[in-house]
Amino acid sequence: MMSRLLVAIDRIHQPVTAYAHCDLPCGVYDPAQARVEAESVRGIQQKFQDSDDPVFKQRAVLIKEERADLVKHHLWVLWTDYFKPNHLEAYPDLHDKFWTATKLAGDAKKSQDPTQGQQLLDAIAEIDRIYQETKKA
Amino acid sequence: MMSRLLVAIDRIHQPVTAYAHCDLPCGVYDPAQARVEAESVRGIQQKFQDSDDPVFKQRAVLIKEERADLVKHHLWVLWTDYFKPNHLEAYPDLHDKFWTATKLAGDAKKSQDPTQGQQLLDAIAEIDRIYQETKKA
Amino acid sequence: MMSRLLVAIDRIHQPVTAYAHCDLPCGVYDPAQARVEAESVRGIQQKFQDSDDPVFKQRAVLIKEERADLVKHHLWVLWTDYFKPNHLEAYPDLHDKFWTATKLAGDAKKSQDPTQGQQLLDAIAEIDRIYQETKKA
Amino acid sequence: MMSRLLVAIDRIHQPVTAYAHCDLPCGVYDPAQARVEAESVRGIQQKFQDSDDPVFKQRAVLIKEERADLVKHHLWVLWTDYFKPNHLEAYPDLHDKFWTATKLAGDAKKSQDPTQGQQLLDAIAEIDRIYQETKKA
Amino acid sequence: MMSRLLVAIDRIHQPVTAYAHCDLPCGVYDPAQARVEAESVRGIQQKFQDSDDPVFKQRAVLIKEERADLVKHHLWVLWTDYFKPNHLEAYPDLHDKFWTATKLAGDAKKSQDPTQGQQLLDAIAEIDRIYQETKKA
Amino acid sequence: MMSRLLVAIDRIHQPVTAYAHCDLPCGVYDPAQARVEAESVRGIQQKFQDSDDPVFKQRAVLIKEERADLVKHHLWVLWTDYFKPNHLEAYPDLHDKFWTATKLAGDAKKSQDPTQGQQLLDAIAEIDRIYQETKKA
Repeated sequence: MMSRLLVAIDRIHQPVTAYAHCDLPCGVYDPAQARVEAESVRGIQQKFQDSDDPVFKQRAVLIKEERADLVKHHLWVLWTDYFKPNHLEAYPDLHDKFWTATKLAGDAKKSQDPTQGQQLLDAIAEIDRIYQETKKA
Repeated sequence: MMSRLLVAIDRIHQPVTAYAHCDLPCGVYDPAQARVEAESVRGIQQKFQDSDDPVFKQRAVLIKEERADLVKHHLWVLWTDYFKPNHLEAYPDLHDKFWTATKLAGDAKKSQDPTQGQQLLDAIAEIDRIYQETKKA
Repeated sequence: MMSRLLVAIDRIHQPVTAYAHCDLPCGVYDPAQARVEAESVRGIQQKFQDSDDPVFKQRAVLIKEERADLVKHHLWVLWTDYFKPNHLEAYPDLHDKFWTATKLAGDAKKSQDPTQGQQLLDAIAEIDRIYQETKKA
Repeated sequence: MMSRLLVAIDRIHQPVTAYAHCDLPCGVYDPAQARVEAESVRGIQQKFQDSDDPVFKQRAVLIKEERADLVKHHLWVLWTDYFKPNHLEAYPDLHDKFWTATKLAGDAKKSQDPTQGQQLLDAIAEIDRIYQETKKA
Repeated sequence: MMSRLLVAIDRIHQPVTAYAHCDLPCGVYDPAQARVEAESVRGIQQKFQDSDDPVFKQRAVLIKEERADLVKHHLWVLWTDYFKPNHLEAYPDLHDKFWTATKLAGDAKKSQDPTQGQQLLDAIAEIDRIYQETKKA
Repeated sequence: MMSRLLVAIDRIHQPVTAYAHCDLPCGVYDPAQARVEAESVRGIQQKFQDSDDPVFKQRAVLIKEERADLVKHHLWVLWTDYFKPNHLEAYPDLHDKFWTATKLAGDAKKSQDPTQGQQLLDAIAEIDRIYQETKKA
C-alpha cells in the first residue's frame, strides 16, 4: 500500500513534494509549513523597515504577531508528533534546536529587524536538515 | 521509490524559495500550503480504509473535516490575494480551476476514498503549475 | 452620517431572508453573513475618521482586519458551496463578481475610507441580488 | 418539511435589518447572526433524522457542535455588548431570556431532534423581538 | 510578599482540584480560567504604562484585545454551562454579576489603566466566591 | 510597582492565585491552564466508559480531541516562553519532561482510558512542581 501511495505521489509531484501533519496521525509532516510562515515574518520585517506609513507599519506588527505564532505552532507539532526517541538518540541536541527555534519565533514578534527573521529561518533550515536525514534513514 | 521521492525533495529543499501569505501583503505565497493539507486528506482517507477500529475511523472523519477546510482556505487566499487581472487574461479558466479545486476539497469532507483525495491533489497540482509559470513570467 | 448609513442599510435589506452555511451541507446559506461583517468594516472606517485618539484608531485598524477577513470567508463559502454550474451558466460573470468582492474585502484591511467600505457593500449587494434570484428560480 | 421550514423562516424574517458586532464598538449588532447559525442547527438535526449513512450522521453531529457553539457566541456578544442597563429596566427578564437561549444552544449539541432546534429558534426570535423594539425606541 | 504569594499557591497546588469546561459536559469548570486571562490583562495594562516604546505599546493593545476576549469567553461558558436554576434562586444577582464582569472585560479592551484590570479581577473574584460556595453545597 | 501588584494580588486572591501567559510577555504563566484541560480529558475518558449512547460517545471523542490539543498548546507555551536557560541547567531533563507530557496529550486523543488521562495529569503535575520551585528561587 505504501509503495502504491508513493507511486501516486511521484506521479503528480515531480519537482516538489510536501508533507503536512495532523494528529490522527496521517503520517504527513513537513518543516516547510514553519518555514513558509517564517518567510512571511522576514518579509514583513523588511516591509516594516521600508515603509513610513504609520498604519501600514501597525498592520505589519499585528500580522507578524500571527505569522510568528504559526511558526511556533508548526515547530511544536513537528517536535512532539514527528520525532521519536530513536531520533533523539541520533540527534541529542534536537530538543535544544527546537527550543531555540521556537524562542526565535517568539522574539520575531518583538523584532522589526529582517536579520532576526533570517536567524529564525536559519534555525528552521537546521531542523529541516535533520528532518530530511531522518526521512532517508 | 522512497529514494526517488527524496531526490525530489532534495532538489527543492536546496535553494528553497518558500512562500506563505498574509494580507499585509508580504508578497509571500505558496500552493504548497494547500497541497500539504491535501496530502493529509488523502492519507486520512487511506487510513480510514485500512482500519476497522470504529473510534479511529471516527477520528479520521473529524480530522479530515479540518484538513479539508484548510485546503479550501489556502486555495481561496491564493485565488483572491495572489492572482491579478493580467494572470486571468493569460489563464482564462483560472476561476474555474479554483472553483473546481475548492469544491473537490469540500467533497473530500464527505468522501472516504483516497482516489477522491488524489483528484483534489491533481487539481491543486494544476493550479501550482500555473502559479509557477506566473512566477517565471 | 448615521442617517445615511441607515438609508443604505434599508436599501439593501428589504426582503431579506437569513440563511447560514455549514459543510454538511445543511442547505442553509445567506449573503447576510458577509454583509453584516462588511457593515462593521464600513462603520469602523468611519469611526477611525471621526476619532483622534491614537489607541482607539489602532484598535479600529486591528478589529477591521478581523471583520474584513470574515467578509472574505463568508463570500468564499458562498461561492464554493452554494453556487452550482447551472448558476454559472445563468450568471457568466459570477466568478468575477466574487473575485472583485473578495479583493475589495482585502483592500478594506488597508483602507480607512468609508467610501471604500461602501464599495465593498455594493459588491456584496450585487451578489445578494443574484443569490435571491437563484433562490426564486 | 421544507415548506414548514420556509414558513417558519418567513415568519421570523420579515422586516429584518442585519447588523454585526465587534468590540470597538462599531455600533453594528444583529440577532440574525445567532439565528442563521440556529437555522443550520435545526437543518442538521433534520438531516440527521433523514439519513441512515453512519458517516454522514457522524459529520452531522460534529458540524452541529460547531454551529451551536456559534449560536452561543453570537448571543453572548449581543447580551454583553449591545444591551445596556436601561434596556434591562424595560425588559427585566432579559437576562433570563439570554440564559435560556444559550442553554438551549448548548442542548442542541446533545439533541438530534429538530423540534429542539425549533425551540432554540423561538428563543432567539423572542430576543430579536426585544432587540427590534429597543432599536425603535 | 512573594513568599506569602507562594504560600498561597502552595496551599492550592497541593491536593489540586482543577476544573475546566467543555460542552459534553465533562463536569469540569473553573473560574481560574477567566481569572488567569484577567491577570494577563492587568499585567499588560501596567506594562503599557511603564513603556515608552511605541511598538511595544501597540503590541500590548493588540494582545490585551485577545486576552480580554478570552476572559469574556470563559465567563460566558461558566454562566451558561455551570450555573443552574437552583443556583440562581440562591444568588438572585448572579446574572447581573456576570453581565457586569463581562462588560468590564469588554471595557478592558479600551482601557490601558491597571486599576480597570483590577476591577475586572475583583468582579471575577466575586463570581469565584459564589462558585466555591455552590461547590460546597 | 511589583510589590504594589503583589499586594493587590494578595488582597483578592487569598486562597488561590493563578497565572496566565501571553507573548508580550506580560510575565504571567500558569501550569494550571494545561492541567485544567487535562482534567477535562480524563473526565471525558471516564464518561466515555460509563456511557452506552453512541452519539454521546462520539461527542466525547471529538471534544476530547480539542481539549487534548489545548493541553499541548498550554504546555508548549510554558516550555518555550516561561523557561529560561538557567532553568534548564537546574533541571536538565526539563525538555524530556515536556516532550513526554505533550506526547501523552497526543496519545489522549487516541485513548478512551481514564488511567491514560491520569498519566497525563501526573506528567503535568511534575512540570508544575518544577515550575513552583523556579518561582521560589
